[in-house]
Amino acid sequence: MSFVAPVKDILFVVNELAQLDRISALPGCEDATAETAQAVIEEAAKFSNEVVAPLNVLGDKHGNTWKDGVVNACPGFSDAFKLFAAGGWQGVKHPVDYEGQGLPKLIATPCAEMLNAASVAFALCPMLTDGAIEALLTAGSDEQKARYVPKMISGEWTGTMNLTEPQAGSDLSMVRSRAEPQQDGSYKVFGTKIFITWGEHDMTENIIHLVLARTPGAPEGVKGISLFVVPKFLVNEDGSLGARNDVQCVSIEHKLGIKGSPTAVLQFGDHGGATGYLVGEENRGLEYMFIMMNAARFAVGLQGVGISEAAYQKAVEYAKERVQSRPVDGSAKEAVTIIHHPDVRRMLGTMRALTDASRAIAYVAAAHNDIAHQHEDAATRAHHQAIYEFLVPIVKGWSTELSLEVTSLGVQVHGGMGFIEETGAAQFYRDSRILTIYEGTTAIQANDFVGRKTFRDGGVVAKFLLGEIAKTVEELSAHDGAAFASMRKHLEQGARSFEHAMEFVIANMKRDPNAVFIGSVLYLQLAGVVLGGWQMARAMLIAAKKLQEDQAFYGAKIAIGQFYAEFILPRALSYEASIVGAKGGEGVLALTEDQF
Amino acid sequence: MSFVAPVKDILFVVNELAQLDRISALPGCEDATAETAQAVIEEAAKFSNEVVAPLNVLGDKHGNTWKDGVVNACPGFSDAFKLFAAGGWQGVKHPVDYEGQGLPKLIATPCAEMLNAASVAFALCPMLTDGAIEALLTAGSDEQKARYVPKMISGEWTGTMNLTEPQAGSDLSMVRSRAEPQQDGSYKVFGTKIFITWGEHDMTENIIHLVLARTPGAPEGVKGISLFVVPKFLVNEDGSLGARNDVQCVSIEHKLGIKGSPTAVLQFGDHGGATGYLVGEENRGLEYMFIMMNAARFAVGLQGVGISEAAYQKAVEYAKERVQSRPVDGSAKEAVTIIHHPDVRRMLGTMRALTDASRAIAYVAAAHNDIAHQHEDAATRAHHQAIYEFLVPIVKGWSTELSLEVTSLGVQVHGGMGFIEETGAAQFYRDSRILTIYEGTTAIQANDFVGRKTFRDGGVVAKFLLGEIAKTVEELSAHDGAAFASMRKHLEQGARSFEHAMEFVIANMKRDPNAVFIGSVLYLQLAGVVLGGWQMARAMLIAAKKLQEDQAFYGAKIAIGQFYAEFILPRALSYEASIVGAKGGEGVLALTEDQF
Repeated sequence: MSFVAPVKDILFVVNELAQLDRISALPGCEDATAETAQAVIEEAAKFSNEVVAPLNVLGDKHGNTWKDGVVNACPGFSDAFKLFAAGGWQGVKHPVDYEGQGLPKLIATPCAEMLNAASVAFALCPMLTDGAIEALLTAGSDEQKARYVPKMISGEWTGTMNLTEPQAGSDLSMVRSRAEPQQDGSYKVFGTKIFITWGEHDMTENIIHLVLARTPGAPEGVKGISLFVVPKFLVNEDGSLGARNDVQCVSIEHKLGIKGSPTAVLQFGDHGGATGYLVGEENRGLEYMFIMMNAARFAVGLQGVGISEAAYQKAVEYAKERVQSRPVDGSAKEAVTIIHHPDVRRMLGTMRALTDASRAIAYVAAAHNDIAHQHEDAATRAHHQAIYEFLVPIVKGWSTELSLEVTSLGVQVHGGMGFIEETGAAQFYRDSRILTIYEGTTAIQANDFVGRKTFRDGGVVAKFLLGEIAKTVEELSAHDGAAFASMRKHLEQGARSFEHAMEFVIANMKRDPNAVFIGSVLYLQLAGVVLGGWQMARAMLIAAKKLQEDQAFYGAKIAIGQFYAEFILPRALSYEASIVGAKGGEGVLALTEDQF
Repeated sequence: MSFVAPVKDILFVVNELAQLDRISALPGCEDATAETAQAVIEEAAKFSNEVVAPLNVLGDKHGNTWKDGVVNACPGFSDAFKLFAAGGWQGVKHPVDYEGQGLPKLIATPCAEMLNAASVAFALCPMLTDGAIEALLTAGSDEQKARYVPKMISGEWTGTMNLTEPQAGSDLSMVRSRAEPQQDGSYKVFGTKIFITWGEHDMTENIIHLVLARTPGAPEGVKGISLFVVPKFLVNEDGSLGARNDVQCVSIEHKLGIKGSPTAVLQFGDHGGATGYLVGEENRGLEYMFIMMNAARFAVGLQGVGISEAAYQKAVEYAKERVQSRPVDGSAKEAVTIIHHPDVRRMLGTMRALTDASRAIAYVAAAHNDIAHQHEDAATRAHHQAIYEFLVPIVKGWSTELSLEVTSLGVQVHGGMGFIEETGAAQFYRDSRILTIYEGTTAIQANDFVGRKTFRDGGVVAKFLLGEIAKTVEELSAHDGAAFASMRKHLEQGARSFEHAMEFVIANMKRDPNAVFIGSVLYLQLAGVVLGGWQMARAMLIAAKKLQEDQAFYGAKIAIGQFYAEFILPRALSYEASIVGAKGGEGVLALTEDQF
């Protein structure tokens, strides 16, 4: 069995947890009805299941081939990408003015999740193209937008983001690529960019590179970086393709996973300079790049959700088939399928609970983003924007860390077969391993979460969300039964842990930044665990109301919520203890390099 | 830089924590002095560093080749194995009577750890041979011992363990291979065995397979399994090789990791029956197999320690070289090597703390095993045997789970470079992934720990160890400073969590086994965290005494101990909450298969 998109679960989150009806009520979103959402999501599910999922193993086995600067994508990928383009899938969330479908992020988000669940390697190409489109729409001139964006939205061309250089990874202040102004207003770009996803391929006739580089005399550091658009083939006035530009793919990487996606080393300007055009104003490149990076971070979080879902499905399938050992409670004399063993239940329960929670946070964040963009009231927009920005590092940093745990459990459920590549569980384990690294490592997300998202506003957003959680705890109290009692207890305790950790962060940020930052990743994970638990609790409350409509479906939501309460939320306790306990600033911080 | 065995750390654990002097004082262990231990360990370190470590990447890249039933080991492996044999390394712990060195397990243990740190794929061959030697020494006839064991100890032949069949993985009751008695007292063996590590290769002239099979009319289930020795080439009376036996390697697996070690599918008896000889008594095969399996489980735990050490070293090396970003505390205006960033310290501290703790538990367990074998007093032997058996599932189940965490952090420290195969961090991530699976999954270890090791004796050993921990907590109180205060607080709390969980396990085992077994893996991890913390605390106490002798070395022990207290021991809180909180027996246990 290949991947089957969990449409029913997805629609539950879209409609009930993220409350699509709030979005359809916004000006400009009138078309985003529940019916439209369902139709689009079902169609995207069909495309992901039928066209993309079958390519995933092939992409891993075959990879891409590089020869003399030309990269041939894995067989099948080109055809699938043409179908993707023809279906209009690149344009789901992009403006109607540029041939997009103009749908809200809340509808585009499940589409992206499903595409990634089917194949992260494939989905990366549209993801990076999205980033390039957004950068051009944000900062490009009207002429640039008109020249590049419609062909990218139509899927005729793809886009890339060129940030990283050998000496400049997380630290973009060290970018050295340079751009020299020419008489005609264009620039000649020179430099080496590495880790460029889908940086070269033969799936489309052109590739639009967005490149960070410095102009002559630009300030040092991040304030001297500008953004350039550097097409692989120059584009004539009439939109036809001109000369091949001076950007060469000198190699592609040999990677642990996502082997279906070529990761290019691009050399700009070895033969006189690559022609590039300034996007927006000089020295504001990092700012523009951050816009696309924020979108990309959210999208990488969805990769985490998607690959977790795919790994979960595969593990469930195996657990229902594989017969091994009698039940520990003596309920059968014969060996049973392993799904009956409590530890397999724990593993599947963990996988399911983490996947559900990370999906819920992502979709809820998407809804905040839609309100932040479309609501008519400025204060409301600002409020939702702040919540969205608070949630982005969690979507990126938490969901991807979880995907490492989920895909590892997926291998474990398979036992020895999980270690055999043909089974497919190992590919998820390998593919997911990049997610906590690219578009900003978990530490980078955590620094953002600690600094810009918690400390800068004195915890205003965090406290608002704690208030909302308290309301949910209150609602849980109105329900009987072990499941609701468990969730109430653990969610309340988790919220308290989060509050203590937040207070520690705010109180010590100036006084002892090392003590804060040694726990920053744990603080981010703690926030994820608690906010994820909050969404699981909300799901339980909704499920309780609807239980009679569909016992199996809503009953499972309550059961998984209880599992999350008992097996995931207690992690908050240990995170809190470590974050607050590192106050001494001693231990490993004081070690010399030689002591390691 | 390649792997360099951490001899100083290893000797600290051997001498101070595992107290080699208690072993040298045992009858028959007089030669196992501190000087001998140091000499053997230094020589083993040299061999691991210089001969084996350079093969590790090669084994991964090149793998083994199978053609028409013949497996060619990766180039270089054969020569290294000949040097291994010539150095007498296969015989370190085996009896002098059979040409072994007869050294205690406490000295053999670091040798095995270092070999695994250098290359798990290589070290697997001696590890399986050890298991086969032990099975023959335990249950074989004098004639069988004389015929096979000396040539295995000399490294002229290797050995394998043939348990798994396609339908019989964790559940050996389902073994179907059969053995038909012949007139001459031998048997004809028929069946398919899978996942046979180093099951076929060209490094030695013969391979001695130990095979589980059923004789005609044997009882159903595990009580009807017998053990057979089935050599690849029959062995004549004079010890020379005879005819090729009817056992064929029909394929080798395409695996996620440990690619340097061939994993064979062996077909016995397709051409009339493979000649085998009963080892010990009929129908007692599982019992004998458990002897070698217990040794193998301990050895796999050491693989976890070794690969964690190797991954740690690689991450430290990168962290000292890679320059990226300014320090968060503003202590430098320029970008610094990443080892100065608090989150990198957290990752390296976690890797180091977990590696140190898992090494300490393994060596301490080895010392208990030595006392259990060599002490003159039967009650003392029994006491130490019980502790050893209590610790084995922790050595296997905890150290290997940790190795997944440590090797994953190793990738993360490298950032994007960690995902590139040439860097080498990814190989550790892939190689380690089998460790929690083979020789009994973590769940199998946990079942053993819950059932045979905790419930059966009513927690006697667990309570004894808790008493020892309480003494250590008392000793910690005599020391000033944040590090000791932190350890005292968290160790005491951890011990309390372990006690509560143990009481839960004992109280509910009969009443509600599902509620116990859904938390069994967490209970095992909890025990590991707390017992590991105990060893770290003991290391701190010793380090405090010796601090003046070597500030850097012993100072680091105190710092890493503090880190363990603050960042690892708090995990006990969340494990406890989940184990005890699953009492309801609701949630995922009640879900139908379709609800997954």
